[in-house]
Amino acid sequence: MPDQSELSFSPLASETVPRYAGIATFMRLPHYTIAEATQADIGLYGLPWDGGTTNRAGARHGPRQIRDASALMRKVHPVLNLSPFKLANCADFGDAPVNPLQIEETLEMIEGFVSEMVEHNIMPLGAGGDHLVSLPVLRALAKKHGPLGMVHFDAHTDTWDRYFGACKYTHGTPFRRAIEEGILDPKRVVQIGIRGGLYSEHDDDWGLAQGIRVMRMEEFTELGVNKALEVAREVVGNQATYISFDVDCLDPVFAPGTGTPEIGGLTTVEAQQMVRGLRGLNLIGADLVEVSPPFDPSGATALVGATLMWEMLCLLAEKVNQDKQ
Amino acid sequence: MPDQSELSFSPLASETVPRYAGIATFMRLPHYTIAEATQADIGLYGLPWDGGTTNRAGARHGPRQIRDASALMRKVHPVLNLSPFKLANCADFGDAPVNPLQIEETLEMIEGFVSEMVEHNIMPLGAGGDHLVSLPVLRALAKKHGPLGMVHFDAHTDTWDRYFGACKYTHGTPFRRAIEEGILDPKRVVQIGIRGGLYSEHDDDWGLAQGIRVMRMEEFTELGVNKALEVAREVVGNQATYISFDVDCLDPVFAPGTGTPEIGGLTTVEAQQMVRGLRGLNLIGADLVEVSPPFDPSGATALVGATLMWEMLCLLAEKVNQDKQ
Amino acid sequence: MPDQSELSFSPLASETVPRYAGIATFMRLPHYTIAEATQADIGLYGLPWDGGTTNRAGARHGPRQIRDASALMRKVHPVLNLSPFKLANCADFGDAPVNPLQIEETLEMIEGFVSEMVEHNIMPLGAGGDHLVSLPVLRALAKKHGPLGMVHFDAHTDTWDRYFGACKYTHGTPFRRAIEEGILDPKRVVQIGIRGGLYSEHDDDWGLAQGIRVMRMEEFTELGVNKALEVAREVVGNQATYISFDVDCLDPVFAPGTGTPEIGGLTTVEAQQMVRGLRGLNLIGADLVEVSPPFDPSGATALVGATLMWEMLCLLAEKVNQDKQ
Amino acid sequence: MPDQSELSFSPLASETVPRYAGIATFMRLPHYTIAEATQADIGLYGLPWDGGTTNRAGARHGPRQIRDASALMRKVHPVLNLSPFKLANCADFGDAPVNPLQIEETLEMIEGFVSEMVEHNIMPLGAGGDHLVSLPVLRALAKKHGPLGMVHFDAHTDTWDRYFGACKYTHGTPFRRAIEEGILDPKRVVQIGIRGGLYSEHDDDWGLAQGIRVMRMEEFTELGVNKALEVAREVVGNQATYISFDVDCLDPVFAPGTGTPEIGGLTTVEAQQMVRGLRGLNLIGADLVEVSPPFDPSGATALVGATLMWEMLCLLAEKVNQDKQ
Amino acid sequence: MPDQSELSFSPLASETVPRYAGIATFMRLPHYTIAEATQADIGLYGLPWDGGTTNRAGARHGPRQIRDASALMRKVHPVLNLSPFKLANCADFGDAPVNPLQIEETLEMIEGFVSEMVEHNIMPLGAGGDHLVSLPVLRALAKKHGPLGMVHFDAHTDTWDRYFGACKYTHGTPFRRAIEEGILDPKRVVQIGIRGGLYSEHDDDWGLAQGIRVMRMEEFTELGVNKALEVAREVVGNQATYISFDVDCLDPVFAPGTGTPEIGGLTTVEAQQMVRGLRGLNLIGADLVEVSPPFDPSGATALVGATLMWEMLCLLAEKVNQDKQ
Amino acid sequence: MPDQSELSFSPLASETVPRYAGIATFMRLPHYTIAEATQADIGLYGLPWDGGTTNRAGARHGPRQIRDASALMRKVHPVLNLSPFKLANCADFGDAPVNPLQIEETLEMIEGFVSEMVEHNIMPLGAGGDHLVSLPVLRALAKKHGPLGMVHFDAHTDTWDRYFGACKYTHGTPFRRAIEEGILDPKRVVQIGIRGGLYSEHDDDWGLAQGIRVMRMEEFTELGVNKALEVAREVVGNQATYISFDVDCLDPVFAPGTGTPEIGGLTTVEAQQMVRGLRGLNLIGADLVEVSPPFDPSGATALVGATLMWEMLCLLAEKVNQDKQ
Repeated sequence: MPDQSELSFSPLASETVPRYAGIATFMRLPHYTIAEATQADIGLYGLPWDGGTTNRAGARHGPRQIRDASALMRKVHPVLNLSPFKLANCADFGDAPVNPLQIEETLEMIEGFVSEMVEHNIMPLGAGGDHLVSLPVLRALAKKHGPLGMVHFDAHTDTWDRYFGACKYTHGTPFRRAIEEGILDPKRVVQIGIRGGLYSEHDDDWGLAQGIRVMRMEEFTELGVNKALEVAREVVGNQATYISFDVDCLDPVFAPGTGTPEIGGLTTVEAQQMVRGLRGLNLIGADLVEVSPPFDPSGATALVGATLMWEMLCLLAEKVNQDKQ
Repeated sequence: MPDQSELSFSPLASETVPRYAGIATFMRLPHYTIAEATQADIGLYGLPWDGGTTNRAGARHGPRQIRDASALMRKVHPVLNLSPFKLANCADFGDAPVNPLQIEETLEMIEGFVSEMVEHNIMPLGAGGDHLVSLPVLRALAKKHGPLGMVHFDAHTDTWDRYFGACKYTHGTPFRRAIEEGILDPKRVVQIGIRGGLYSEHDDDWGLAQGIRVMRMEEFTELGVNKALEVAREVVGNQATYISFDVDCLDPVFAPGTGTPEIGGLTTVEAQQMVRGLRGLNLIGADLVEVSPPFDPSGATALVGATLMWEMLCLLAEKVNQDKQ
Repeated sequence: MPDQSELSFSPLASETVPRYAGIATFMRLPHYTIAEATQADIGLYGLPWDGGTTNRAGARHGPRQIRDASALMRKVHPVLNLSPFKLANCADFGDAPVNPLQIEETLEMIEGFVSEMVEHNIMPLGAGGDHLVSLPVLRALAKKHGPLGMVHFDAHTDTWDRYFGACKYTHGTPFRRAIEEGILDPKRVVQIGIRGGLYSEHDDDWGLAQGIRVMRMEEFTELGVNKALEVAREVVGNQATYISFDVDCLDPVFAPGTGTPEIGGLTTVEAQQMVRGLRGLNLIGADLVEVSPPFDPSGATALVGATLMWEMLCLLAEKVNQDKQ
Repeated sequence: MPDQSELSFSPLASETVPRYAGIATFMRLPHYTIAEATQADIGLYGLPWDGGTTNRAGARHGPRQIRDASALMRKVHPVLNLSPFKLANCADFGDAPVNPLQIEETLEMIEGFVSEMVEHNIMPLGAGGDHLVSLPVLRALAKKHGPLGMVHFDAHTDTWDRYFGACKYTHGTPFRRAIEEGILDPKRVVQIGIRGGLYSEHDDDWGLAQGIRVMRMEEFTELGVNKALEVAREVVGNQATYISFDVDCLDPVFAPGTGTPEIGGLTTVEAQQMVRGLRGLNLIGADLVEVSPPFDPSGATALVGATLMWEMLCLLAEKVNQDKQ
Repeated sequence: MPDQSELSFSPLASETVPRYAGIATFMRLPHYTIAEATQADIGLYGLPWDGGTTNRAGARHGPRQIRDASALMRKVHPVLNLSPFKLANCADFGDAPVNPLQIEETLEMIEGFVSEMVEHNIMPLGAGGDHLVSLPVLRALAKKHGPLGMVHFDAHTDTWDRYFGACKYTHGTPFRRAIEEGILDPKRVVQIGIRGGLYSEHDDDWGLAQGIRVMRMEEFTELGVNKALEVAREVVGNQATYISFDVDCLDPVFAPGTGTPEIGGLTTVEAQQMVRGLRGLNLIGADLVEVSPPFDPSGATALVGATLMWEMLCLLAEKVNQDKQ
Repeated sequence: MPDQSELSFSPLASETVPRYAGIATFMRLPHYTIAEATQADIGLYGLPWDGGTTNRAGARHGPRQIRDASALMRKVHPVLNLSPFKLANCADFGDAPVNPLQIEETLEMIEGFVSEMVEHNIMPLGAGGDHLVSLPVLRALAKKHGPLGMVHFDAHTDTWDRYFGACKYTHGTPFRRAIEEGILDPKRVVQIGIRGGLYSEHDDDWGLAQGIRVMRMEEFTELGVNKALEVAREVVGNQATYISFDVDCLDPVFAPGTGTPEIGGLTTVEAQQMVRGLRGLNLIGADLVEVSPPFDPSGATALVGATLMWEMLCLLAEKVNQDKQ
C-alpha cells in the first residue's frame, strides 16, 4: 500500500498527455482503493449494475463509458469560478462490488463499499448503473447523516411499489423503499422533470401522500429555471441533502443511451443551470445514473453524464472546502 | 372470426408482461382485422408505403418500427388526465394494403381500407409512410364528413404541384390535390412549423391564395406555443378536423429518421404542448407520418412518433367518449 | 376462441403483402395462443429473457428483432427441397412468460409454457434469450422423451458450475444443470465450435468426464463440415435429439449482436451446411439463442438467427411429416 | 465545351492530394459529360434509382457512396499487373437521368444515356441502383452487339415474372424481361451464388428451361473457385459478354448494405478471384448493383462495391487496349 | 480551359435531377478551378485538414460530407427573401491543397489558394477542417482588407497560446496567432457561445486584455438572440468582417460530429436566428469548421453545417450584389 | 512508489468481478508505471498516436478501446495450453508519451518509453496507433538485440519512401526507414497478407531488392496456413524476432475499424492459426496496430485486436518462461 503522503489527487495534465491517451478514470484522476487513499475528500466511483431493470438493461456498462467520456473535462469551472481539484482531494475509487445475478446481495455489497467511504469522511459521487443503486448509497449515507433530503432529477418518480408480482427492489422503486426505511425524509424530497405515461391514475398518490414535492415537466416548463430552483432549494432546506440525477430527466435527444426514455424533457442548458443553482446546499453526496451504453453507440449520453458529474463535483468540492474551514 | 363479445381492447399489462416481450403491435393493443372488430372506436393502423418520395425513401418501414417503440407507452396520460383505453375501444388493425411499385393503385387500396373503418364509425389513427398516404385517408374521411379542416404539422407545406415533369402524386403534393379535389377546406387548414428553402420565390403563392394559414417556424418561435394554439384553433373552428403530423416538423435532432430533414424545427416539448392544446376540437382522425427507420438506426424517431401518436390517441379517445354520451 | 377448423397456418404471401408490411411474427406466420391452436405441429415462440447473463445483457430483446428479420424468409428450401409450411402446421405462439427480475421463477414459467406445447404434441422451436432459457425447455421435453441427445452449437461449453460465488443458474451453466438433473444424456451430447479462453486449465474436465463430445473450433476446422457431421450424427444416434444453436458459435463478424463474442468461429456457409446435415435425425425441438439486439444495431445477427431458425424449421417440419405417415 | 485535346483521363494523384480530399468521383477520375469526352474508352457512371425494389429501398443512393469509397483505389492492379488508366481513357460521366416516381420512363432515360456511350464506342461500367437498372443497359448494348452473354453474380436469379399482381418491371425480373426481349442469350448466361428461399417449388423452372446455367451457392462451394470459373467461361464463350455483379452475391457480412440480404454467400476473397478469373473474355460492359447506403452506415459495402468495380475496370481496360491494337 | 462566357453558376435543378443523384458538390453548384471561373463572385471550397487537432481528429473529412449533405439545400431563402444564386455567381472551387503531415506548409498552401480567390475579388466561403484552417484564410483576406473584424461562433475562444510544450499552431490557438499577426482587430472580435471547462483560471485573460468581446453561453442565454445580436453588430461595426462558425458552438446534440463537444450550447433555431441577424454587415468571407464525419455516422452534423453555410451564403450573396450596384 | 514485493501481476478475477466492471486495463491487469514494476516480464502498453496517417486518422484512440475490449479475455489458452499470467509477470504500463502535433519528437518519446522497458528486460507488447509507431519500438529493441527479424502481418508493405513530397515518416514508410537504419534485417522479414492496389508498378521493387519475403494474399490463399507458416518460420529463423500485426491484414469485415481497409484479407480463424504457429520463435516483442475506433463504432475491431494481443501474449509469456529456466 502506498504511503499516504505520496498520493496524488491531481488529474492528468491535458496540456501534456492528450485527452485520448492513458487509462480511463473519472476526470483522469488517479485510481486508488479506498483503503489506499483514506485522506481523499471526494470519491468518484462506479455502480456497474442494472439488475433492477424491468425493460432495457445496459446501465451496468455506464461507469466505464462515463470514465472514457470524462477525459474531456478540464480543471476550472468558468461559470462557478471553482477549481474542484484545488478545493478537495479527489480520486477514482473504481467500481463498487456487484453481482449481476443477485439483487439483494448486491444492495449489501454496494452499501458496504459506500459505507467505507462514509466512515473515512469521503463524500461519494457515484456513476450508475440503474436507479436501484441509489438505495444502498442512501442507506450508507443515512447511517451517518440521518434521514436525508434529496434533489431528484428524473422522468419518473421511482416510487412505485412492486413489479411483476412481488418484486420490491427494482429501478422503479428505490425511493419508495428509502422512504419506508426512513432514510429519505419525503418532505425534503423534490422530484424534477417527471413525465411519461402512468400505469394507473393512482401512480403518484403514495408519493404525494408522503409529502414529496413532485415538479412535473409541465410545471418546470412554466416556472422556468430560476423559480424551479427556488422551489427545490426551499424543499430541501439547509439539512443534509443528496443529489440523484437520472440521465433520463433530460430529453432523450440529449441522452439517448438510457433504459426508459420519455420524450419532452430538460435540455442540457437547463440541466446545467439547475445543477449550478444548487450551489451552497448542505450536500453530502450525489450520483448520476441510468447511462446505458448499449443504447448510446455514439457515447453522447456518457459525455452528458460525465459533464453533469463534473458540475456536481464542483458543488461537492466547494462544500468540502467550506467544511474544512 | 371471433365472437365480437369476446374481443379485448386492452393493451398488454406491462406490470406482468415486460415491455420488450410479445408481438409488437401499436401500444401493445390486440391485433384484429377491421371485419373482426367492428365495434372498435379507434383503429390504429400502418401505412407502409413511400412511393411518393422524391429523395430519401424509407418511410415504408415506419409502421413496424413505431409499433416496436410504442411498447413504451403506458395507460394514463398524466397531464390530460385521460385513460384512452377506458374511454374508447382501441385496436391495431394491421397495415393498409399497398403496392410499392404502383402509386395510384396504392392510393385506392388505402382509401378502401380506411373507408371500411369509416363505414363502421371507427376513427382512424394512422402511422406512415410518406406524406402522400394522407391523401387517400382524407378522401375516405371526406366522403363521410365533407370538406375537412386540418391542423398540419410539417416543415413543408406539401402543396407543390408537380415533380419531375408531370408527376402529380408525390409526398410534396398531397394537400394541393386534396384541396383541388374539394376534400380539404383550405380556409380551415393551418400549417405549423414550415421552414426550409424554396424551389422558387412563388412556392407558397398557390396555398396562400387558397386561404391556407401558413405559420412558418419564425412566426411560431415568436408567438410561442399558447398563441400559436389560439391561431390554430381559430382556423379550424368547431367543424370536422383532421390532424396530420409530419415528424419532420420537429427539428431533425429530435427526429433524424425522416426523408427531408430541415434544421431549426420544433422541440418535443413544444410538439407535446401543441398536440395537447388541440384537446376538444371536433377531431375525426389523425396520422403521424414520415418516420423513416433506415435513417433512424437508434429508433429515436420511432419513439417520438409513437409518443405523439399516443398524445393524439388521447384526444381522439376523449372525442369518441364525448360522442357516445 | 376461434374454431380450430378456421385456423390458418400459412405465412403471409409476400407476392401480395410486401415483406416490410404487417405485424412482425416469426416467418410471417399467424399469431395464436397455444390454447387457440392445439392442432399446430410446430410452435415458434420467443424466450425474451437474459437474467442468467454475467456480462453483456440484451438477449431479452432477441425474439422481437428475430421476428422482424424473419419476414425475409420465403416458403421453399431450395437445397433441401422442402416446403415446411406444407409439411407441418406452424404458428407463432408469442413469447413465453418471464420475469426479468427472478431467475428460478422464470425457469418455471418457461417450463410451463413449453410443457403446454409438449402436451399437445407440438414441437417447440424457440428464439432466445440467453442460453439459460434452454434449461427449462429441456426439462419440459425430457418429461416426455426421457434423457435427450443434443447437438449443441456454441463457442462455449456452458457446463461451468457456478458464477459469482453460489450462482448456479446462469447462461454459462445450463447444460451442467441439465446433465445433473438427468434430462440430458451427456454421452449423446456433441458441442461444436467451442473456443475462447478458459478461466482455468480444468474448465472442461467435468464435461469430458461425463462423456460429452467436445469438438473445439480447431478440430472443426481440421475435420471440415462433412466429417464433423459424421461425428455429430454418430454421437446423437437415432434417439430423441434437440438442437441448441447459440449464435455465438458463429464468428462474431457474422453475429456481432451477442453477449459473449469469441473471434475465430464458424461462417454462415458452414453453419448452414451443418444444420442441413442434421436432416433425418430424431428431432424433438430446437432453439436459437443469444441474439442480442442492443449489440446489433444493423440487425445482421437477427437475420442470421432467423435464417438458422428457418433451416431448423425445415428439418423439424420434415420430421413432423414423417411421424404423421 | 472543352477542347477534346485538353481533356485529362487521369485520376487525382494520391501522392499529392490526400485521398479524403476533393470532389468525390469514381476512382478520383475527371468528371465530364459524355458529349464533352467522346474520346473516352470507358465510362464510369451511376444508376441512382431503386424504383423496382419490392422490399427495402435505398440503392438509389449507391452511386454517391461508391464514388466516395472509390477514393481508396490506386492505379496499378498488383495481381493482374494491369494499369487501367494507362490502358484506356476513363472518365466519370456522372449519373444517368432517372425519375424516382416513374418506372418505364426511367428505363428509357437510362437506355438513352447508355446508348450515347455505346454510340461513341465507350464501354459502360455502371454503379447501381437496384438490379432493374441492368435491363436498359442491356437494351442499349444489345442494339450494337446482338444478344449478349452474361456472367451474373447474385444471390437471386432475378428471373421471376411478376410481383404484386401485374408488375413486370421490378428488381426481381430484369433478366426474364431481357431474355423475353431477345437481348440476353439464355444459353450464354451463368448465374453464380444463387441461394435463399423460394416463393414456390417452381421458381427456377422458367430460367432452367431457357437454358440458363444456374450455379447455386452449394455447387459453388463444392466446386471451388477454379472449377466454377471453368464453368462460367465455358458458358459465355468468346462472344460479347456483360458482367453484372449484384453485391448481394456476397455474404451479407461483407455487404450488409443491400436490399435483399441472404446469408451464406461468397467471401470477398472468392469474389475477387472470380472476377479476376474472367480476364480475357470478350467483355462489352459491366455493372455493380444493389449497394444500399441507408443499410450500410459504415460504408463497408460501398468499399466492397468500389473495389469490385475496380477489379472489373481492369478487365475492361485490358479488353479496350487489346481492341485498339 | 472553358470559355468564361460558357460557364454556368447555377445549381442542379432538383425538380429534374433528384437530390440524391449526381456528383456531390457544395449546393449542387458546378465545380471549377479558380482559374477556370474567375468571374465567380463567391467561391465555396473545402479545407480538408485537421492537423492542428489535439484530441479527436476527423474534421479533415468534413468538406466531402458537407458537400453530400448540401444537396438538400434549395434556391430561395424564405425568411430573408433572398435568392443567392441570382444575386451572385457561385461555384464550388474544390478543396484547398493541404498536407496532412505538415502544419506550417499547409498553412501556406491554404493561404495561397484563398489568396487566388481574393485577388480575383471572389469572396471565400469555406468548409473545414479544424479551426486552425481559419488562420491562413484570415491572412489571405487581411492582405486585401487590413485587420479584420470577426463574428466568431464557438464553444471555445481558441485563443490559447501553446499546446504540448511549444506547439503554437493548433486548433485551439488560431485567433491568438491572428491577433499577434495583426490580421484580426481584437476590438472588433466577438465570440459567442463560449463554454466548457478551463485549463486554468487565467485562460481567458489574454483575450480579454486584447479587447475581445467574449459572450459566454450563460450571457447568451440570459440576453436572448435579439440582444446578443445587438452586441455582436456593435462590436464589429461597419468595417470588413469575417464570420467564423465552429459547429461546436451548437449543443453537441445538434452537432455530435465534432472534435471537442461541450454540452449546453446553442440550438439550431438560435443559430439560424443569429446568422440571419448578421445581415447587412460588411462581410468579406466566412467559414464553417470542425464538422468531423467519423464522429457523425448519421451525417446530421454535416446537414447542420451545410444549412449554416447556406445561411451565410445568402448574406454574402446579398453583400456581393450590393457591391455590384 | 509501492514495494516491489507487494505488487500483483494477476488480472482481475472474472468469477468475482464482472467483466464489464472496473477500470479498463489491458487484460484486466494491474496498472503500474515501468518504474514501479521493474520486475515485470511483459509490459502491455498503448501507443496512442496516428500522426503518420495520410488518409483516415483515428488509430490514436486504439489503445483505450482495445483495453476495454480486452476485458473479455480469460486466463488460459485452450489450444496452446498456456496460462500466460502464470508463466510471466504481466502489467499494463499505460500509454507511451506522445505529441499529436509533432512527428519526430513523438518517435523519440516512444523510443524512450520502450527503452526503459528494454533496459529492465521487460518484453514490450504494444497496442497502436498507426503503423509508424513500430519504428521507435524497433529502434529501442535493436539497441539491445541488433538487427531484428520480423513477422509482419499487413495488407501493405509499408516500405514506401515518401508521401506528399518530402515526408519520410508516415504510416506507409516505417519499415523502409527501419531497414535503412539497420535495425531490421530485411532478409529476416516476412510480410503476410499484402494486397490492395499500387501507386505504380514499382512500389514493391525496393523491398524485394532488400530481400524481404513478401507473401501476397494470393500466395497465402494458395499455400494455406500450414505452408505459409513454414515459409514464415524459415525466413525469421532462430534469431531475435518481432511480430508486428497490422489489423488491416484481416479482411475489413473482421476489422472495419482501421485507416486503410483493403477487401480480400485474412479471416480471424486464419489469423489465429498464423499467430499460434509462430510459437517457439525467438520472440523479443510484438505489437498490434491500426485499430481505429472512430471507424469501429461497434468495437468489433478492438475485440479482434485484443484477442490477437492475447494470442501474442501467450507466445511471449512462454518465451519469457523458457528464458527463465
